[in-house]
Amino acid sequence: MIWVNGIITDHLPVTDRGLLYGDGVWETLCINDCLPILLDWHLKRLQQGLQALSITPPDMTQFIMEIHAACTLKENGILKLIITRGRGVRGYNPQSAGECTRIIQLSDAATYPPGYATQGICLTLCETALAHQPRLAGFKHLNRLEQVLARAEFGADFQEGLVRDYAGNVIEGTMSNLFVVQADGSVCTPDLSQCGIAGVMRRFIIQTLAELGIECHIRPLKLEAIRTATALFMTNSLIGLWPVREFQGKTYNIPPLVQVLQTRVKTIT
Amino acid sequence: MIWVNGIITDHLPVTDRGLLYGDGVWETLCINDCLPILLDWHLKRLQQGLQALSITPPDMTQFIMEIHAACTLKENGILKLIITRGRGVRGYNPQSAGECTRIIQLSDAATYPPGYATQGICLTLCETALAHQPRLAGFKHLNRLEQVLARAEFGADFQEGLVRDYAGNVIEGTMSNLFVVQADGSVCTPDLSQCGIAGVMRRFIIQTLAELGIECHIRPLKLEAIRTATALFMTNSLIGLWPVREFQGKTYNIPPLVQVLQTRVKTIT
Repeated sequence: MIWVNGIITDHLPVTDRGLLYGDGVWETLCINDCLPILLDWHLKRLQQGLQALSITPPDMTQFIMEIHAACTLKENGILKLIITRGRGVRGYNPQSAGECTRIIQLSDAATYPPGYATQGICLTLCETALAHQPRLAGFKHLNRLEQVLARAEFGADFQEGLVRDYAGNVIEGTMSNLFVVQADGSVCTPDLSQCGIAGVMRRFIIQTLAELGIECHIRPLKLEAIRTATALFMTNSLIGLWPVREFQGKTYNIPPLVQVLQTRVKTIT
Repeated sequence: MIWVNGIITDHLPVTDRGLLYGDGVWETLCINDCLPILLDWHLKRLQQGLQALSITPPDMTQFIMEIHAACTLKENGILKLIITRGRGVRGYNPQSAGECTRIIQLSDAATYPPGYATQGICLTLCETALAHQPRLAGFKHLNRLEQVLARAEFGADFQEGLVRDYAGNVIEGTMSNLFVVQADGSVCTPDLSQCGIAGVMRRFIIQTLAELGIECHIRPLKLEAIRTATALFMTNSLIGLWPVREFQGKTYNIPPLVQVLQTRVKTIT
């Protein structure tokens, strides 16, 4: 079920700048027990994106009310939120746009084989590289062709693909963030100041590691650091946390930390 | 008037990947005397883009028939063509998509003050820089946030903004391509292998310069080359060719070549 500006419809004007230029931002979040998980953090990132693009946000009180109303319709599911700059006359000039368009889409819960979370996934290395564009890094805008190209590189043999930037830094998965457990027990996750999406689940894991007293370094990471790691795991709001079982012929352990974090993820409200 | 997959409608499904990821390509072209100008070249670039994104093209015979049918409705106007990968289930994987979506939009002709073409425009320098992404360079895809950010930088005092890449190379205008006339009479236009859109009008001008026996070099250009140039002009399919009157405090001449090229542009069929 889809609402566009509060009205049930699965259609949008062709002249919406979301289609014409990818001029907007989005979020995907879980619904558990009819409640949107980590909604505050998702809305925070959404608003950061709107600010980066100078899009006037919708009435947030009304938007949040609509989000909660949608969630009451599904005990467990997925909520997708999209805000675009709205309709404009021809041309890139954003000043021609009217009010933003707000879209809420309610879907069934994602069904992944439970083994992905318990026994780990097979990760591949994508050739598609991410461009450095700090103006668009970190938030979740609608310009996602790099992710589409990277995701097109692998089929059912792999559950996720690792993506680097053109400088050879490992950045993220096509749909998830990467955490690397090092031999000394500390954890790293790539710096996303030049490209990549700073996931809400990534933020939750970074915070949880701090609560557990485990060091988590945000820094540039080369492929070498992946090869010398003792464990890897990928995170996003829908999958939670998937450990990596295999990457480029190397088998990785699944340390007890993974289950500790997964348990924490399950308790998020 | 808008047609989506051959049917008159101004709406598109929200689940179209054109909206969700900017997963598609587009063209804007002039209609003169009920005929689409340089249609073959526009369709060539459109198909190059579809190939780069591995999107299965529509039935081109049918699409061209629809384009010509639309053009008969307006003596002079603008035709916008959009091809998206179509609808998909959730996720970046393009294999989940069905057939592509084809959109044809017919609009009134653009009305620019005639002085822009005869007396030249004021050009400003944008701070927004383009990222290097050779996988997406040259063709006209729907991920256009960089252009939106650059265009947002200037108001009515300027008619176009010059955009560089992060290496400081001058690449293009926000909506047009750049040509630089040098002191020796030769012409340069920026290399677009890393970023930028290779305009159809740019292609026409490059070809016309060759026919006129004027050297045109496609190469990386720094701002210094703009400052030492004797003349600058910007091109796209809608504006044709606009000479630059002023850029960063320097006044540029409008050489006879500009009118020669503009006359050639007017004779395109």
